[in-house]
Amino acid sequence: MPEHVDAVALTAALVRCPSVTPKEGGALDLLTTILGEAGFECHRVDRNGTPNLFARWGKKGAAKSFGFNGHTDVVPVGDAAAWSRDPFGAEISDGWLWGRGATDMKSGVAAFVAAAVDFVRETPPDGAVIVTITGDEEGPGKDGTVAILDWMKAQDESMSVCLVGEPTCPERMGEMIKIGRRGSMTVSFEARGEQGHSAYPHRARNPLHALVRLLARITSHHLDHGTEQFDPSTLAITTIDTGNVASNVIPARARSVVNIRFNDAHSSASLADWLREEAAEVQDETGVKIGLAIQVSGESFLTPPGPLVDLVAAAVMAETGVDPVLSTSGGTSDARFVKEHCPVVEFGLVGQTMHQVDERVEIAQIGALKSVYRRILRDYFA
Amino acid sequence: MPEHVDAVALTAALVRCPSVTPKEGGALDLLTTILGEAGFECHRVDRNGTPNLFARWGKKGAAKSFGFNGHTDVVPVGDAAAWSRDPFGAEISDGWLWGRGATDMKSGVAAFVAAAVDFVRETPPDGAVIVTITGDEEGPGKDGTVAILDWMKAQDESMSVCLVGEPTCPERMGEMIKIGRRGSMTVSFEARGEQGHSAYPHRARNPLHALVRLLARITSHHLDHGTEQFDPSTLAITTIDTGNVASNVIPARARSVVNIRFNDAHSSASLADWLREEAAEVQDETGVKIGLAIQVSGESFLTPPGPLVDLVAAAVMAETGVDPVLSTSGGTSDARFVKEHCPVVEFGLVGQTMHQVDERVEIAQIGALKSVYRRILRDYFA
Ligand SMILES: [Zn+2]
Ligand SMILES: [Zn+2]
Repeated sequence: MPEHVDAVALTAALVRCPSVTPKEGGALDLLTTILGEAGFECHRVDRNGTPNLFARWGKKGAAKSFGFNGHTDVVPVGDAAAWSRDPFGAEISDGWLWGRGATDMKSGVAAFVAAAVDFVRETPPDGAVIVTITGDEEGPGKDGTVAILDWMKAQDESMSVCLVGEPTCPERMGEMIKIGRRGSMTVSFEARGEQGHSAYPHRARNPLHALVRLLARITSHHLDHGTEQFDPSTLAITTIDTGNVASNVIPARARSVVNIRFNDAHSSASLADWLREEAAEVQDETGVKIGLAIQVSGESFLTPPGPLVDLVAAAVMAETGVDPVLSTSGGTSDARFVKEHCPVVEFGLVGQTMHQVDERVEIAQIGALKSVYRRILRDYFA
Repeated sequence: MPEHVDAVALTAALVRCPSVTPKEGGALDLLTTILGEAGFECHRVDRNGTPNLFARWGKKGAAKSFGFNGHTDVVPVGDAAAWSRDPFGAEISDGWLWGRGATDMKSGVAAFVAAAVDFVRETPPDGAVIVTITGDEEGPGKDGTVAILDWMKAQDESMSVCLVGEPTCPERMGEMIKIGRRGSMTVSFEARGEQGHSAYPHRARNPLHALVRLLARITSHHLDHGTEQFDPSTLAITTIDTGNVASNVIPARARSVVNIRFNDAHSSASLADWLREEAAEVQDETGVKIGLAIQVSGESFLTPPGPLVDLVAAAVMAETGVDPVLSTSGGTSDARFVKEHCPVVEFGLVGQTMHQVDERVEIAQIGALKSVYRRILRDYFA
């Protein structure tokens, strides 16, 4: 019987790979070796220089297949002098493992790879276990998980469900599972009026008065009061700029940017319609032309509470003693791509130091995370 | 009996003096000679390098004294290549006299100096005629007419009434007398909130939402509907600036500048109180600190219709056949300083080309203007 894979040692080995986006740094090679030795069929599905790994244990097209998704790339070290340990040293002390990617998310990848390998070796399931790992989650992400999913589609590979192993817990291990995410869109308004003298506003068309009117309306409008699984949608003006230094001149143009995080009561299209209507009304009222440029980062999505979510929540409860909250909060992750393929949930450890100087992971959490993943696999195939 | 002073020739002579602010350019020297020869007591009351001229015919402390005010400095030529005539050539053709300062306001100065000299020579009045001319009306104006008035106060010199000879007619000679001016103030708002992530607006304090709320309130508030002699007060936002390029970040600070032109229903102090109250309310509602910096360019002022205004209006009607409108419109002039000293009105010719390339004056208007001024003097002392 082969040894168990040590998730802490694997985390340390991965941290020592300098895989700052878009560099592979040896991380995917290492995982390919470990997964390959355990009987996983491994494919590097790099696209446009972005390194990606697809690995499957079991038959292609199995009726039940459980997928994991994660990334081995990390954000830059930042101010190297500010670190108290070598960012790629994976030093262990006081119960912590230090280094860039220790929480985001080399420990998560190590935990699910270790869990998957132990699981298929010890209790080979009737189905497939799939591991998808990209080297570009922190970068533009155009050739990362998306490329793996595109390749899978072309190859008739599929996952029945998928778990993304990003850190999900704000403070305490086990306290949060993410089952979806609000959508995000950015809207740039440009108001074009007519320049004039401040003393004769009626002879000009002040773009700022129109913009203020529009922004006052859209910021005082309650988008919703939250939905069953989502916090209320939010809208934030992030900038208004004019650049006019002459107080006796009414400027011709002004611009503003608004960021909206929206729940499943809306879509980017419904919000765009609303904003266009409001802008058109203000345009009619003021004679100031208001243009909109809309950039959608992602629609909202949700894996509604049900068998998959229950299974993951029960495993978390069993292994950590904590009853996890089902949340849709937070920034984007590759779950926004995976959800196009199959139901997806996210569970990982505490992410407090991610992207920071002295990023580190509590070693006890790595073991606990591996146990949760292992139990999820067991219960899924039970 | 001495010759009449030719106002057109005097205008041309003044245009030939290159008196771009703050250069005297020979203009005040020329006027000192002409006025001195006619029996005016002349004093150069230069201050901090700014050339100024005070001239009085008649006794100091006379019971009745009529004053004129004007300036010989001119704005720069601008794009010299764009001029079709020499900007300092005073070329006469097609009934026009061309050059920088031709309308603003060497023709006005020439007309009142010519009228004053002819008047005291031909019909010496029982009283004083005073001429005050600055070389810094187009510049900062801190040592111009203000310096003359300061000097007059120190010397116990005074004018019973004063006429400023700036161009006042929008299109047709005689159509407008200015009897006052709206006040002007500029208010800079700085909103200081708390930076945060766009996805969690409730954890930040968005200075832009507070600023938009405040600006929407003050721009939708009607200051007034005009008063007996004044147009409605106006308020124009001239800029809003933030400089935040990250759409996922709520900025900590934002600023805006507002310009207010206000009539005699307000003072800068009453408006400042109003704005401070509105800002304090929004601050209470939003938790965003809003600071105000206020710069007052001038309070509103009015020489109410009465003997002086009637006298000037009648003279305009008699000499031009046009019944002048009594107006308080337009930008600032040195009348805002003179009104602290005595009742002041403004009447001059058509100012359409002032400050422009190919500035020029219709020659017929110079003669008409001199006639109006001469009649005003006669009627005042009658
Ligand atoms: Zn991550
Ligand atoms: Zn002028």
